[in-house]
Amino acid sequence: MKIAAYLDNGRPGVGLVSADLQSIRPVELPATAAGLGALPLIELLAAGGAMPATGQPVALDTVRLTAPLPRPRRNLFCVGKNYHAHAREFAGSGFDSSAKTGGDIPSHPIIFTKVPESVIGPGDPIVIPQGVSSAIDYEAELTVVIGRGGKGIRREDAMKHVWGYTIINDVTARDWQSRHHQWHMGKSFDSFCPMGPWLVSADECDGTDTTVRLWVNGEPRQNAGTIDFIFDVPALVETLSAGITLYPGDLIATGTPVGVGIGFNPPRYLKTGDVVKIEIGGIGTLENPVR
Amino acid sequence: MKIAAYLDNGRPGVGLVSADLQSIRPVELPATAAGLGALPLIELLAAGGAMPATGQPVALDTVRLTAPLPRPRRNLFCVGKNYHAHAREFAGSGFDSSAKTGGDIPSHPIIFTKVPESVIGPGDPIVIPQGVSSAIDYEAELTVVIGRGGKGIRREDAMKHVWGYTIINDVTARDWQSRHHQWHMGKSFDSFCPMGPWLVSADECDGTDTTVRLWVNGEPRQNAGTIDFIFDVPALVETLSAGITLYPGDLIATGTPVGVGIGFNPPRYLKTGDVVKIEIGGIGTLENPVR
Repeated sequence: MKIAAYLDNGRPGVGLVSADLQSIRPVELPATAAGLGALPLIELLAAGGAMPATGQPVALDTVRLTAPLPRPRRNLFCVGKNYHAHAREFAGSGFDSSAKTGGDIPSHPIIFTKVPESVIGPGDPIVIPQGVSSAIDYEAELTVVIGRGGKGIRREDAMKHVWGYTIINDVTARDWQSRHHQWHMGKSFDSFCPMGPWLVSADECDGTDTTVRLWVNGEPRQNAGTIDFIFDVPALVETLSAGITLYPGDLIATGTPVGVGIGFNPPRYLKTGDVVKIEIGGIGTLENPVR
Repeated sequence: MKIAAYLDNGRPGVGLVSADLQSIRPVELPATAAGLGALPLIELLAAGGAMPATGQPVALDTVRLTAPLPRPRRNLFCVGKNYHAHAREFAGSGFDSSAKTGGDIPSHPIIFTKVPESVIGPGDPIVIPQGVSSAIDYEAELTVVIGRGGKGIRREDAMKHVWGYTIINDVTARDWQSRHHQWHMGKSFDSFCPMGPWLVSADECDGTDTTVRLWVNGEPRQNAGTIDFIFDVPALVETLSAGITLYPGDLIATGTPVGVGIGFNPPRYLKTGDVVKIEIGGIGTLENPVR
């Protein structure tokens, strides 16, 4: 199942995307849910509710997709340095000493957050914050959508709490990330969290073994399999829920593969006019211009 | 003005606390706002709205105070190592090497977040997460309540965006804070954000020059003036808003003074049965048992 949020002549809707990706069937949700995208539907399904009635299909190319969860219920959980190859790249970039973030390969998951208001949808511009930072980098990330909430979730039960997946671009101001030591601010600037194109249920995407690819202006930059994860999805759910209750709709961005802009010498940061495209197997593509 | 949120025979309310702290006048807010405490009122006042009508005073000791913002609109922004004396204490504790978090005295504000759902109210128990961590520490913190939102707020305009202040206890699992490098998880466990007793408007509390004190079981542990801040309130608002739009009701916990449990040798962590009391000049006291 693919759940998309969209604007149809300016009116917000949530719907099921057809298998051929040509049309979308609107799901009937209470009007109070407008602006939250698919969140009320995920909450309903996670609570064991039945899928609400759907209306007549509309052609996908007649609506404008928005982020499927345009305003997450709280900051997104994000994992740092979670691919072996990227962890080595990051250490080699001179960005951080091993003392600073746990060596090349972290022994425990590194978790930081992005503010919900940094989320933008497919096609929306990533805005370079003029005068604030010009070291703006991309990070393609498979992102877990929590279904049933819980606390103290064991590794072997973790996948029962994963509703599905989406894509985010964990856009980062590298100078802020480094200078302020904790990564939150440099990850949370307005427009720094492109998300989409939709949510895909876990039966249609195997998050433990899929491909994550990113292009800048058509040039391949990232291309890896999530089998290279240092901490797999069950490990992340187990660790996060040990002390923090998880809720339906919570998002866990699982880290980015090798190939980020800071990994080049000299670094290749994003600039106005660039187009960033991410493709994750089983989900789809997310493309955003840079302004 | 002091704005409190409370339960009156189980019914949630928001009201103005009298100058003698003996009574509270309920503010008439839409029923949809229940559960959000003072947030809708702060949003209304920040938008230039007039204070709504108030009802008959009720005795303060007949209601149960809750956190004034029991469910903040997004994760709380929190500042690390923001008092000169505490930064030296932290470095001396062996917790972190200077490479890890920017030396004894950070050159730029260190910002991390706590999840909204970690918030508890006055008198609610701080729960030790059995089997997860026993290195639970306290941190008394003056906390800024943003009124009018904005972005790119300059230092000289910052105080126009500060509605007022409250107290939080930035409870921390030190082992998780250290082991996972980014501090978010060890700061966000359920019950790890006692808040209260109410919000105080900026005309009644000078956040740039007030006292922050904390006791464990009556024993003084922290006692400092916010004049010792490394980054003052205007600097924090300027830095945070450079790339992130701030909204009414956003919270900025300004860091904690010297005297935390990890600063002792051996560390003196919280244990079941302890009582933690915080007092900040111009605001009041916040007391929580440890369970």
